[in-house]
Amino acid sequence: MAKDKKFWIYGKHAVRAAVLNEDRQVFKVVVLPQNRDFLSDLSVKIEVVDKSHFMSLFGKDVIHQGCAAQVLPLDEVYLEDLPNDDRPIVFLDQVTDPQNIGSILRASAVFGAKAVVLPEVNAPEVTAVIAKVASGALETVPLIKVKNLVQSIKMLKNSGYWCLGLDERGDKKIGEMDLSGKFLLVIGSEGQGMRRLTRENCDFLVQLPSIGGFSTLNAAQAATVSLYEILRQKGSKS
Amino acid sequence: MAKDKKFWIYGKHAVRAAVLNEDRQVFKVVVLPQNRDFLSDLSVKIEVVDKSHFMSLFGKDVIHQGCAAQVLPLDEVYLEDLPNDDRPIVFLDQVTDPQNIGSILRASAVFGAKAVVLPEVNAPEVTAVIAKVASGALETVPLIKVKNLVQSIKMLKNSGYWCLGLDERGDKKIGEMDLSGKFLLVIGSEGQGMRRLTRENCDFLVQLPSIGGFSTLNAAQAATVSLYEILRQKGSKS
Repeated sequence: MAKDKKFWIYGKHAVRAAVLNEDRQVFKVVVLPQNRDFLSDLSVKIEVVDKSHFMSLFGKDVIHQGCAAQVLPLDEVYLEDLPNDDRPIVFLDQVTDPQNIGSILRASAVFGAKAVVLPEVNAPEVTAVIAKVASGALETVPLIKVKNLVQSIKMLKNSGYWCLGLDERGDKKIGEMDLSGKFLLVIGSEGQGMRRLTRENCDFLVQLPSIGGFSTLNAAQAATVSLYEILRQKGSKS
Repeated sequence: MAKDKKFWIYGKHAVRAAVLNEDRQVFKVVVLPQNRDFLSDLSVKIEVVDKSHFMSLFGKDVIHQGCAAQVLPLDEVYLEDLPNDDRPIVFLDQVTDPQNIGSILRASAVFGAKAVVLPEVNAPEVTAVIAKVASGALETVPLIKVKNLVQSIKMLKNSGYWCLGLDERGDKKIGEMDLSGKFLLVIGSEGQGMRRLTRENCDFLVQLPSIGGFSTLNAAQAATVSLYEILRQKGSKS
């Protein structure tokens, strides 16, 4: 998305977080009459509009919660900009569904991942769907697009990260791994998993526990559980 | 949904699981030409149709994966029918979004919850969305609607279950609880949480760990992580 290209986001959490984010340029906030006071605690001008206005912006199938904002994309963040602490970084290999990406951003905010990284090829634009599902996390967790996922993984491994891949054929359960230290968490697409080269660059392949023959979680559920496990282990040591 | 009411489900995992489920009556399976062989390993008649047929069934905004089945609802399952083992049972209080319910069914199948229970008032019909997101789990994890959630919780507590509620104001982190034994896991709606009476009937209130000021996960993410933690603890003891 061109840096100068305005787009709309919707949903109460997403809009409030955007308005609160000093780095986010917000051009316009529109709300339905019943949300007249929704942002009254913030110094932002809002425009009260009717349902047909939302209809013209988003169509009829969108759960916009009567609240939307026209914004600019955030400045790009680069891997090199990230703080060198021991919070994990999430790498997505072939995960392109905006619902999943939004959900992974949200879990990253809650469980303390410092960024979500994906290859710029096939990456979806940052859309209203990602912003809505992320529920505010798009403002706090950088979504970083890189030219080459494997090169980025190698670079970070050289600076002290372990690369932990989630894989159904993993050697052990994630809960049995010692997850102290700095980790990249690599999540592949549902069904296909990681690409071969990505998998070969993982230091460890782990799986999630499961009962019986039932296949797997989707990419967002798997990422959420993995980030929980990393934080759980760090928390229980502090 | 009336027991005799046919409905359509779509998505490859959902359709395959329905066909494999002996208890599921399947009237018709339709696929796009490219999926001609998708179910060729199963003894089921399929009808190859074109895109306009799917369009007429589902409209244009549905990710049906070129595969759908017309089915009957499963026979109802009652709480009293569930096996008396130590797998958890999920209770949903005011969680009504079909995406969330589908996702919770899926996590239940993977992490071994034996049923998902919700109040029949305001419960959504079992729809194609639930089936699709559940990715087959609708065939294996009973979705049980009860007249009175609190009465059902009390009944199960009397038969030996502990009632564990997820609540932002919980006394401790879920990972710090000893989760051996039989548990009901109660999940409230995002935002509102559990209703007061439900909360008062919980033996324990726990929270998920989180970093910084970021609010919370959605109901499905929270349920998924909690079910993981329960299975993780059981696994590490066996």
